[in-house]
Amino acid sequence: MAAYSSAPDPGRVLSIQSHVVSGYVGNRAATFPLQTLGYDVDVINTVQFSNHTGYGHVNGHKTTPEQLTAIFEGLTTNGLVSHSRILTGYVPGAEALQVVSDQIRQMKEVDPDLIYVLDPVMGDMGTGLYVSKEVVPIYKSMLSIATVITPNQFEVELLSGININSLPTLHTALHQLHTTSSLPHVAFSSIPLPISLVDSLSLPSPPASYTRLLPDPLPQWYDAAGVGAPEDEVLVCFASTWADGKMDTWAFALPTIRGYFSGVGDLFSAMVLAHFQNPDSVSELPPLPHAVSKALLAVQQILLRTHLYSLGQTGASGMATPRPLHRPSDQTTSGSVIPSDTELDAINPLNPKDPKRKAKRMRLRELRVVQERALIQDGGEGWPGRQLDWDDLLRHGM
Amino acid sequence: MAAYSSAPDPGRVLSIQSHVVSGYVGNRAATFPLQTLGYDVDVINTVQFSNHTGYGHVNGHKTTPEQLTAIFEGLTTNGLVSHSRILTGYVPGAEALQVVSDQIRQMKEVDPDLIYVLDPVMGDMGTGLYVSKEVVPIYKSMLSIATVITPNQFEVELLSGININSLPTLHTALHQLHTTSSLPHVAFSSIPLPISLVDSLSLPSPPASYTRLLPDPLPQWYDAAGVGAPEDEVLVCFASTWADGKMDTWAFALPTIRGYFSGVGDLFSAMVLAHFQNPDSVSELPPLPHAVSKALLAVQQILLRTHLYSLGQTGASGMATPRPLHRPSDQTTSGSVIPSDTELDAINPLNPKDPKRKAKRMRLRELRVVQERALIQDGGEGWPGRQLDWDDLLRHGM
Repeated sequence: MAAYSSAPDPGRVLSIQSHVVSGYVGNRAATFPLQTLGYDVDVINTVQFSNHTGYGHVNGHKTTPEQLTAIFEGLTTNGLVSHSRILTGYVPGAEALQVVSDQIRQMKEVDPDLIYVLDPVMGDMGTGLYVSKEVVPIYKSMLSIATVITPNQFEVELLSGININSLPTLHTALHQLHTTSSLPHVAFSSIPLPISLVDSLSLPSPPASYTRLLPDPLPQWYDAAGVGAPEDEVLVCFASTWADGKMDTWAFALPTIRGYFSGVGDLFSAMVLAHFQNPDSVSELPPLPHAVSKALLAVQQILLRTHLYSLGQTGASGMATPRPLHRPSDQTTSGSVIPSDTELDAINPLNPKDPKRKAKRMRLRELRVVQERALIQDGGEGWPGRQLDWDDLLRHGM
Repeated sequence: MAAYSSAPDPGRVLSIQSHVVSGYVGNRAATFPLQTLGYDVDVINTVQFSNHTGYGHVNGHKTTPEQLTAIFEGLTTNGLVSHSRILTGYVPGAEALQVVSDQIRQMKEVDPDLIYVLDPVMGDMGTGLYVSKEVVPIYKSMLSIATVITPNQFEVELLSGININSLPTLHTALHQLHTTSSLPHVAFSSIPLPISLVDSLSLPSPPASYTRLLPDPLPQWYDAAGVGAPEDEVLVCFASTWADGKMDTWAFALPTIRGYFSGVGDLFSAMVLAHFQNPDSVSELPPLPHAVSKALLAVQQILLRTHLYSLGQTGASGMATPRPLHRPSDQTTSGSVIPSDTELDAINPLNPKDPKRKAKRMRLRELRVVQERALIQDGGEGWPGRQLDWDDLLRHGM
């Protein structure tokens, strides 16, 4: 009988994020997918909450700055701080974030090759800032120790000080982030762009491995729910690298999946970390667009399967066609696709008298990372993107 | 292209145990393996420590009884307490354990079919009681709500009040546990028995899937380290079920793997939970021996791979043959296989002047559940065991 061989060992990760007992955000959205890809993940939980805030009601506690300091002391004393990669997400409060920042700065001094993926969790276009404003300057200072940051539009604007409403302002904001703090990589996810502009970028369509996820035959509610109707609803993700005084930016167009999902950004940043300069992950693309391409495919697949599951569970057959929940021309209001409860009830006809309706809806929309782990493990070829020709784009019509 | 199908969904688990940032004990040894088997695991962390106590130095904090109560409130209010399985491990202190006990009692009242695997973590034969003595009566009261308990010898003796030094006293202790609290199942792991007694039980040998894990060719240090020399060192595990006024007990003989490993019991209880009455897990055995058989194979495989990795990393070639670290006749001292540092240094010649030597050794002995996840996922046929004929055993020589 042949001897058993272990899988390749891609190394140790330190992930510092929130923990929820039930559901998949923060470390709960990052850890299992990273472990599934073979990473040995050390996990520091910055909070322990019953569930994510989307449920409307949450109970639990934060890890205090003193408790974080104590944990780092324990790890350091035992010589356990030898990670090749770090991932940080939600850290509650400026004092706790400063503890984390100081620790990572020390680790970067010891090992300048350490890959640090920083998700500067501060807010989004819909809700604005949802952390204390004292956090903002700390994140700005952390840009100088990050390898990759994974902000949303709100966070890019906050960190760069530039309002993004066109390709030239996007160019300025990215340029600003790269040059002010010597930040090599920005993975900027899901900014809504007018369809005409996206058309002008000629971005490639979803890969075949994505369409194989669609149910066969398509259920009755499929078209009504708008899962497969991305024509006028496109999100664009940019992967931007600064090297040798030049900004190399790739763009990826994604069909919008309607509905409110939590933990999507957390899963994305974890998958960027997983696939960035991973020696087992061969590609013809440069490191960042490769990682973003693989991360986007994993996230979109999990999202689609979660959405289909959620719709299937609520028995949404025969319902009215909901109006588009997000229109890309609506840029001034929100970059997130957050429908109202009324809109959701049109899609998911849960009993309107049920006081736990919102919680039930949230539960059904928890990312199905465990059930769909094969999608993370298999990886696929990645989401197709295209390198932008900034000179040409800035010269011609925007 | 064929539509993608999701894996079967075995259901939701609530796991209440310790969390360590680095390494694999408590929830860290249970959650990932359960998720790998498809379980959607809700995770309550009763502590957040930097690492397990075997390192000698630990820093971190406990979750207070009030914080545990708050988490349960959040889950209950959001209708998230609908688990089909519960697993509990280390809970620090009587007050916290009482909160956990009250919560599970309520859940069992709502759903009497709930499967509850209780690991009554209180101590072991080597160290004695390592929780406060106020915890003991609470665990005794929890026997009436448990489906399966997974105690070690120390805990069986504490819960039953019976000192085990022969098959008749083992029989009395198991009988006592089953009948006093209507406890249906006891999975009693790793009690050392004299080889003569084990011989008389005629227990079957390791399965072929276990031997395929051995390296080919065998490294130089293999025999010296004694990995494959279980002849005079056998641990026995008993799986005992009480039904219709009759005690049905199966026994499994395991080769000892020398060295100090943490989290083995936590991985075992998680795997018993995973394979107990799992509709996807077909077997000709009754539910408990089936679950124990599968759990033992998974745990032994992970342990063996971890041990081989640890020996390989420390470059233990050409070392002296260490004396047997555990002899089964040594029953009076310890049921664990805990070698001295001197003995470990004979096997793992780490620099004796290195103050972090102990921590390094511990790190190398962290269970390789992530790296060897394929062994958990594949499952295998289970560890072979044999049903005991108590009437015959008690009648004839013990």
